[in-house]
Amino acid sequence: MAIVLGPNQYGKAEVRVVAVDRSTPRHTFVDLNVSSSLRGDFTAAHTSGDNAHVLTTDAQKNTVFAFARDGVGTPEEFGLRLARHFAGSYDWISGARVAVESYGWDRITVAGRPHDHAFSRTGDEVRTAVVTVDGSGPGRTAHVLAGLTGLVVLKTTGSEFRGFPRDRYTTLAGTDDRVLATAVTARWRYTGTDADELPFDELFTGVRTTLLETFASTHSLALQQSLHAMGEAVLERFPHIAEIRMSMPNKHHFLQDLSAYGLANTPEGGAVVYHADDRPYGLIEGSVLRDDVPSAEIAWQGTPGFC
Amino acid sequence: MAIVLGPNQYGKAEVRVVAVDRSTPRHTFVDLNVSSSLRGDFTAAHTSGDNAHVLTTDAQKNTVFAFARDGVGTPEEFGLRLARHFAGSYDWISGARVAVESYGWDRITVAGRPHDHAFSRTGDEVRTAVVTVDGSGPGRTAHVLAGLTGLVVLKTTGSEFRGFPRDRYTTLAGTDDRVLATAVTARWRYTGTDADELPFDELFTGVRTTLLETFASTHSLALQQSLHAMGEAVLERFPHIAEIRMSMPNKHHFLQDLSAYGLANTPEGGAVVYHADDRPYGLIEGSVLRDDVPSAEIAWQGTPGFC
Amino acid sequence: MAIVLGPNQYGKAEVRVVAVDRSTPRHTFVDLNVSSSLRGDFTAAHTSGDNAHVLTTDAQKNTVFAFARDGVGTPEEFGLRLARHFAGSYDWISGARVAVESYGWDRITVAGRPHDHAFSRTGDEVRTAVVTVDGSGPGRTAHVLAGLTGLVVLKTTGSEFRGFPRDRYTTLAGTDDRVLATAVTARWRYTGTDADELPFDELFTGVRTTLLETFASTHSLALQQSLHAMGEAVLERFPHIAEIRMSMPNKHHFLQDLSAYGLANTPEGGAVVYHADDRPYGLIEGSVLRDDVPSAEIAWQGTPGFC
Amino acid sequence: MAIVLGPNQYGKAEVRVVAVDRSTPRHTFVDLNVSSSLRGDFTAAHTSGDNAHVLTTDAQKNTVFAFARDGVGTPEEFGLRLARHFAGSYDWISGARVAVESYGWDRITVAGRPHDHAFSRTGDEVRTAVVTVDGSGPGRTAHVLAGLTGLVVLKTTGSEFRGFPRDRYTTLAGTDDRVLATAVTARWRYTGTDADELPFDELFTGVRTTLLETFASTHSLALQQSLHAMGEAVLERFPHIAEIRMSMPNKHHFLQDLSAYGLANTPEGGAVVYHADDRPYGLIEGSVLRDDVPSAEIAWQGTPGFC
Repeated sequence: MAIVLGPNQYGKAEVRVVAVDRSTPRHTFVDLNVSSSLRGDFTAAHTSGDNAHVLTTDAQKNTVFAFARDGVGTPEEFGLRLARHFAGSYDWISGARVAVESYGWDRITVAGRPHDHAFSRTGDEVRTAVVTVDGSGPGRTAHVLAGLTGLVVLKTTGSEFRGFPRDRYTTLAGTDDRVLATAVTARWRYTGTDADELPFDELFTGVRTTLLETFASTHSLALQQSLHAMGEAVLERFPHIAEIRMSMPNKHHFLQDLSAYGLANTPEGGAVVYHADDRPYGLIEGSVLRDDVPSAEIAWQGTPGFC
Repeated sequence: MAIVLGPNQYGKAEVRVVAVDRSTPRHTFVDLNVSSSLRGDFTAAHTSGDNAHVLTTDAQKNTVFAFARDGVGTPEEFGLRLARHFAGSYDWISGARVAVESYGWDRITVAGRPHDHAFSRTGDEVRTAVVTVDGSGPGRTAHVLAGLTGLVVLKTTGSEFRGFPRDRYTTLAGTDDRVLATAVTARWRYTGTDADELPFDELFTGVRTTLLETFASTHSLALQQSLHAMGEAVLERFPHIAEIRMSMPNKHHFLQDLSAYGLANTPEGGAVVYHADDRPYGLIEGSVLRDDVPSAEIAWQGTPGFC
Repeated sequence: MAIVLGPNQYGKAEVRVVAVDRSTPRHTFVDLNVSSSLRGDFTAAHTSGDNAHVLTTDAQKNTVFAFARDGVGTPEEFGLRLARHFAGSYDWISGARVAVESYGWDRITVAGRPHDHAFSRTGDEVRTAVVTVDGSGPGRTAHVLAGLTGLVVLKTTGSEFRGFPRDRYTTLAGTDDRVLATAVTARWRYTGTDADELPFDELFTGVRTTLLETFASTHSLALQQSLHAMGEAVLERFPHIAEIRMSMPNKHHFLQDLSAYGLANTPEGGAVVYHADDRPYGLIEGSVLRDDVPSAEIAWQGTPGFC
Repeated sequence: MAIVLGPNQYGKAEVRVVAVDRSTPRHTFVDLNVSSSLRGDFTAAHTSGDNAHVLTTDAQKNTVFAFARDGVGTPEEFGLRLARHFAGSYDWISGARVAVESYGWDRITVAGRPHDHAFSRTGDEVRTAVVTVDGSGPGRTAHVLAGLTGLVVLKTTGSEFRGFPRDRYTTLAGTDDRVLATAVTARWRYTGTDADELPFDELFTGVRTTLLETFASTHSLALQQSLHAMGEAVLERFPHIAEIRMSMPNKHHFLQDLSAYGLANTPEGGAVVYHADDRPYGLIEGSVLRDDVPSAEIAWQGTPGFC
């Protein structure tokens, strides 16, 4: 028996890089939060404080800024460039994971025209990309997860919840009409990594639209059903997506009982009044996948949320 | 000399009410966070725990929900209804303050058409209204502050900062071209409270547009100048606004020095790379007002931020 | 009628400075978050972008670090040094406000002895100091507010709430035994600024102890009563404190109804089970003061929370 | 090829339960945040909205409260009771995961004696327990992870970082004396589940003390070395722990350059002044384990942080 070092990784988290293309008066820019992690043989650093294998996290940060100078492109491509650079940059670095958060900005409209260099943040929804490169030689693999987090959606009707089993602790009444609200976190894995085949920006927009449209148009009997329908629609429309995983909290909106003050709370005679609750909340997590695509657990390793 | 009770108030904070108008298949709804505070004679509760004057915060919460049943209207009108109800509801309640945060939602577009009952959150910008009613008899006054918080804007150029004095601790170089970014919190006071004269929704949209357009089109020599131009533009366009107060953190974006890796960081030859810093940050607070309108400090009392 | 610049101020917020005294092997250190604001004549910066009066926020940050080199002392003294430096440093700077947050650390105990240079954070309670210096000549004034925020306390009994008026919207039942919990924010104003007369560290510890002891030993009929008792005790024990203002959210703990599963929820036969709620919450704000000490509203200006 | 449902789970997150033992005048209580997740056959809910298999998250919440009535005991035992109840409660529920956060409270001292029923929060450090039960028949397994998060520690000396490789992007200078600070998240897996053999409270306290003492007394050449030493010490002292995983951000404290104002920043002649940075930060994640204990990945599934 021995006590030994187990799995480990290290890197620089949350490098906040903004890269502005000023090649024409109509500026464009990307606003990113980049985190890198390296995997490999870092045993000596752990057991004896020997840093000969430790490419500093400061250098990882510098690399992010230096690479941004060449232009960033899509978050997925920027992650691929960085992860491929790190993995194998030294013999002992066998893999790298680069996670990118991308913040959205719209041009401000002035006198009916989008401004050349003034922007406003679109909100707190975040586009994500997680790239994992494993190995450094000819057999090395790369995986790309695209995703989004903080997409908050709500239906004022078109949602039921009933027919559930009733154990000793079940007191909830079934309902055929409730408010359904959630904040979607979704991550999907592409079957490849080639930006020529995979127009990452278009694909992102397409998936996002599909998630929204399917949420809206699904008459929901369970949040699980909405989640599944959303994932299925994505895989049906986008053949280059192997699987999608979603985490969807049930942001409860409870009908407020107004009877003590002599008020009804029905669709007739006034607004229907709900209380939006913070905690606790239901949490629905699920995945939809193609059964003929090999799984790739390494692509998901270390990604918070459902796994 | 005596030790005495000083100013005091109490209420219910953060009542999260969602009110859905289902009178037609095309639903509308408001999503609010409402906080009420009562002022008056609550001395006995403080000095002897006698609650005879304490309209419970639970009842205040119930009132918010009950009033929402009748329909909410604009945040300003909902605040006015509530504050007027509370102030004077008992002899000893001499005033009330109702603060409303309103969260924005857009209809989800399905097949090119806005959906009847499915929505997505517009972002983390929040519309605010603070209503203060003072007194209960014929001489009672009411004040309405409208506002917004979390309006995040950025210019990639059109911003300078130079010509400042240099004391012993000044090391900053002046610049004639920098990124300027801020998160605007603005609150403005209306000269009246009458919704017929003051179309609160239109006014809000108009002020928000004015703030955005002025931020974008002002060639900025100082964030103070941008703030002042924004406030002045609002007062010029909207005669029913007596004053506006703004708080604008300078969200620093520092040019990243890439010279150690042999890279320039200029507009030519690649993207210009900045590091977005969290802390510390400049904080610019200022107000613009009409010099012929009486001040109304009570309208601002207890409102976080600049005062 | 004219549209004019109103009150304004600017500064550097949240300078995170850590100053370590290594003059002996037994190190000590302070961990601060410092924000400065300057008041004065900054009109030209607002109206024409002329920065000749704008001592940069970067220089303000540098000043904080440079002054820390000499040793920080108490947060109150550090704030006084900085505010006195800024106010009057140029003719047009008529006043300064310096707000200091101080984070607590304990020595880690190793083999029964406190370690010389290893520490752990005490928690998320924060000690605060706000110093305001107004004017620059012989008549200039200085005010010191000490305080704390995030002091979370709870009583499992010894709290009642009943005897309140019942309007149409009152449904709450009175109770003679409830859980009472709050997170205390308190700020108190000293009658002077002289560290020789006012041992700021001792005073802080004494006030904190008094707040805790009084919260614990007061049989509470209302949270207002607890607040008042706490403030009164502080003023009784500390003659150099002119007034104290407190903000105390009522962090509701509701008895959980277990009857549907055939369970009682009384002190007998098991644990009493409560649900801790997030929102909404009661919010009690109040002040206790000496009636023979002049008020000093300028000392409180811009301080978030109760005012 | 088909598009199919993949792994999924659902449950109630963040049930905030406070359970007070009032059997004697000296009250004790626990303050928990409990999240449950069920695994099993929920296909019909996903594919057709058939909820016949969906034990409601509301019932899960009720179960938490009902079980708390019997007394909670340690977080680990409460998690075991709940997870064993849920797994197999219906044929189709094949497993359950219960995550418990426990918040610490100290008795308030009044007149030198700990109070019977008044308490203050110890801070924002959180004790955690994650229990996973898999299967429902004779072969079912149970795993317990104990842990903590938010243990913030700092050394003012006794930390070096040098000897690292220098690639094109490495600009950092090595140092033989730096501030080392981190916020420890640690989770450790017990070899069993029997509270008679495993006094969970004592073990938790022992592990926490070991982590603190080892952090303090390790002369650190790399944060990886500190992490490894901490994990190794835990496994050496506690034979019932199979493995420990840690995530330790490097909370950078950078020496502030004061030379522009003519100041040194050395241990002599004043305080050494650092700037505490928010982002980016190094992130060190690693594990230490016994090589003769079978791994148990299911115990870690869905646990945020390192995996």
